[in-house]
Amino acid sequence: MSEYAFRFVTFLSDYGMADEFVGICHGVILRIAPHLRIIDISHGIKPQSVREGAMVLAQAIPYMPPGIHLAIVDPGVGSARRPVMIALPDGSWLIGPDNGLLVPAATKLGGIVSCRTIDNGNLMLPNPSKTFHGRDIFAPAAAHLAAGVLPEEFGPEVPAASLVPLQVPAPRRHGDHLHALVLHVDRFGNLQTNVTPEELDGIGVSAGSLVEVRLEGHRSLVPFGETFASVPAGEPVITADSFGLMAVAVNRGSAADRYRASAGSSVILGPPGSGSAG
Amino acid sequence: MSEYAFRFVTFLSDYGMADEFVGICHGVILRIAPHLRIIDISHGIKPQSVREGAMVLAQAIPYMPPGIHLAIVDPGVGSARRPVMIALPDGSWLIGPDNGLLVPAATKLGGIVSCRTIDNGNLMLPNPSKTFHGRDIFAPAAAHLAAGVLPEEFGPEVPAASLVPLQVPAPRRHGDHLHALVLHVDRFGNLQTNVTPEELDGIGVSAGSLVEVRLEGHRSLVPFGETFASVPAGEPVITADSFGLMAVAVNRGSAADRYRASAGSSVILGPPGSGSAG
Amino acid sequence: MSEYAFRFVTFLSDYGMADEFVGICHGVILRIAPHLRIIDISHGIKPQSVREGAMVLAQAIPYMPPGIHLAIVDPGVGSARRPVMIALPDGSWLIGPDNGLLVPAATKLGGIVSCRTIDNGNLMLPNPSKTFHGRDIFAPAAAHLAAGVLPEEFGPEVPAASLVPLQVPAPRRHGDHLHALVLHVDRFGNLQTNVTPEELDGIGVSAGSLVEVRLEGHRSLVPFGETFASVPAGEPVITADSFGLMAVAVNRGSAADRYRASAGSSVILGPPGSGSAG
Repeated sequence: MSEYAFRFVTFLSDYGMADEFVGICHGVILRIAPHLRIIDISHGIKPQSVREGAMVLAQAIPYMPPGIHLAIVDPGVGSARRPVMIALPDGSWLIGPDNGLLVPAATKLGGIVSCRTIDNGNLMLPNPSKTFHGRDIFAPAAAHLAAGVLPEEFGPEVPAASLVPLQVPAPRRHGDHLHALVLHVDRFGNLQTNVTPEELDGIGVSAGSLVEVRLEGHRSLVPFGETFASVPAGEPVITADSFGLMAVAVNRGSAADRYRASAGSSVILGPPGSGSAG
Repeated sequence: MSEYAFRFVTFLSDYGMADEFVGICHGVILRIAPHLRIIDISHGIKPQSVREGAMVLAQAIPYMPPGIHLAIVDPGVGSARRPVMIALPDGSWLIGPDNGLLVPAATKLGGIVSCRTIDNGNLMLPNPSKTFHGRDIFAPAAAHLAAGVLPEEFGPEVPAASLVPLQVPAPRRHGDHLHALVLHVDRFGNLQTNVTPEELDGIGVSAGSLVEVRLEGHRSLVPFGETFASVPAGEPVITADSFGLMAVAVNRGSAADRYRASAGSSVILGPPGSGSAG
Repeated sequence: MSEYAFRFVTFLSDYGMADEFVGICHGVILRIAPHLRIIDISHGIKPQSVREGAMVLAQAIPYMPPGIHLAIVDPGVGSARRPVMIALPDGSWLIGPDNGLLVPAATKLGGIVSCRTIDNGNLMLPNPSKTFHGRDIFAPAAAHLAAGVLPEEFGPEVPAASLVPLQVPAPRRHGDHLHALVLHVDRFGNLQTNVTPEELDGIGVSAGSLVEVRLEGHRSLVPFGETFASVPAGEPVITADSFGLMAVAVNRGSAADRYRASAGSSVILGPPGSGSAG
């Protein structure tokens, strides 16, 4: 074991805050490396939704201090999927299951420098369970790595190309409009889509225009505003959100309630009168 | 930049714990000032409810260590409302939007010593978004101030009298009873009202008496007890809560469920037989 | 006051994360002992469920660093139940109400070395409320003890045998099957029972067998697998969970939804065709 290598571990999961899973992982980490600080990015990922976890992690990670980024959304826990650790260009590491969860975050931070599987039982809790690898494998790995255990002690290097990729749906252009998807609904009922402002511009829609939004049986013309407050309270607006994706929102209200939409809802965006033929 | 000025940042918001907003603000703060400790007061404020946020902040802040108190409930994000920082008599600071949110907490801690707007772009994240000032403006300001950046670098001083006040409804006396309001419902279903024990005493109701409670269509006689356990399990009780306000509770049960009441419910309190004429 | 005695306080309660109760206790602790680190085990215990709190605490505590373990699920707050502190063999302490909450955790860590009531008003907040002893009594006690105040200053020693025990229901064997209970439902809908693998073995059921599960009006044959992924996605499985208790789960799904079961549901487990006479 070399010097104390990292100060921060960030932590994202689908464990929720109602159970003791997150607290137990904190305990495991701090028993091994008491000087570490843990930043909880979010534990509210929809249970077992690898895609949502991957996107939230990629959006959040540029705002985190360098360190070990632990992420666990792991519907295949106990099966043959590999636990992995990924080195990033700034010296940080991603740790989690090899199911696509870590890949967009790695891309966001500049790509994968190297990758290892985690298979050294001496760096796990004794007798790892089949159902809680966060506690038994991933949290100990994060803590040991942060405490200075050398990467080569965790397991053999594997090619970055062998990592399971994440399938992220891109919007499809269809004539003058885009067939897109609601990726994420936040607490305020804002609907984040998978459409960038550039993609909207490509169909002739830009800030200040009206956008025709078709969503869960509603068809309406919505102003493309600079912010939520670009429209009166209670009115819908479409705007680039704080992560650079187009979001459907209601000023001082909830677009999720208004449109009865949720993560996974299809949404069609176009100029007014677009796609009459659907 | 002078010495490292503060050790603690407290943080209250309506961001909830399901999304990554809180975690991202933690990351932003700790990238700027890695030695800071963050105390999350609550992120469960009802979305965009400035009044609830202001009251919870004022009730909690006397229990916090001195430091920077960051509070964000900000329905006007992206509009012209000002980001402000308020100096308090004990050397602490409040940081948040100028919409009334910070004022009761300042009063609780002894009043406003001075006040500045935050408009120095060098102390924000680059290219601040229009929709997430917590991340881009408020969290960086808290971190920079805690790290020792001088207050005058953030922006010009403004008169305390220019701050937007908070409208807090007081109970109205009507004959022998009080027309009041449920301010807050907690996890246990306790209903915190805007009535003090002194105000109840003013209409001749004190500990040991029965109180006539009219609430969401129910009219019942409720004992004014010293604590929840002053009545049998399952029975309602009215008691001074831990913040010195009268609360309607059910011992080992939920008054919110029993009365189907919520924040904003009207409640009338008086002696038995009071207000037959309403 | 002697040396700074502990670095960590762990904290479990039924306060939830929506209100400011947890944040206020953090503030109270850190005003008294600013160097402390707090690990939140869980605040999602079902309101006032002492049994659930006791079991979660006992399951979590082996994973925590040594220190002060603060636990508050306290339906009798304000009544005559005693605040207590319990010394453990490894030098750690449990602090909380004397209502059974702390006893299983003490057993898990090796038993009770000694026990004191907490009744020194100088080590509480001034004028303790009747309804929020977490803030006014327990959090200050944890902080003072961690900061090095000697145990004998808090209050007189009391016999361990005087502590209120926790009633934990054991499964009852009835012919070839077990009448058991769902103790806990986690976020993923996994149903933790009060049955150990050894108890199942005692009725001739072991890994690889089929188990007849009767639960909320359903009767079905469920494979006893090594892990969730032992069955296809969407299929039920019974497996030893990460705390060594038998759990009914659905691979990549929710057993709570499938069986409409919750904490407290009765469950009967036996070999196929068992208990036709019920």
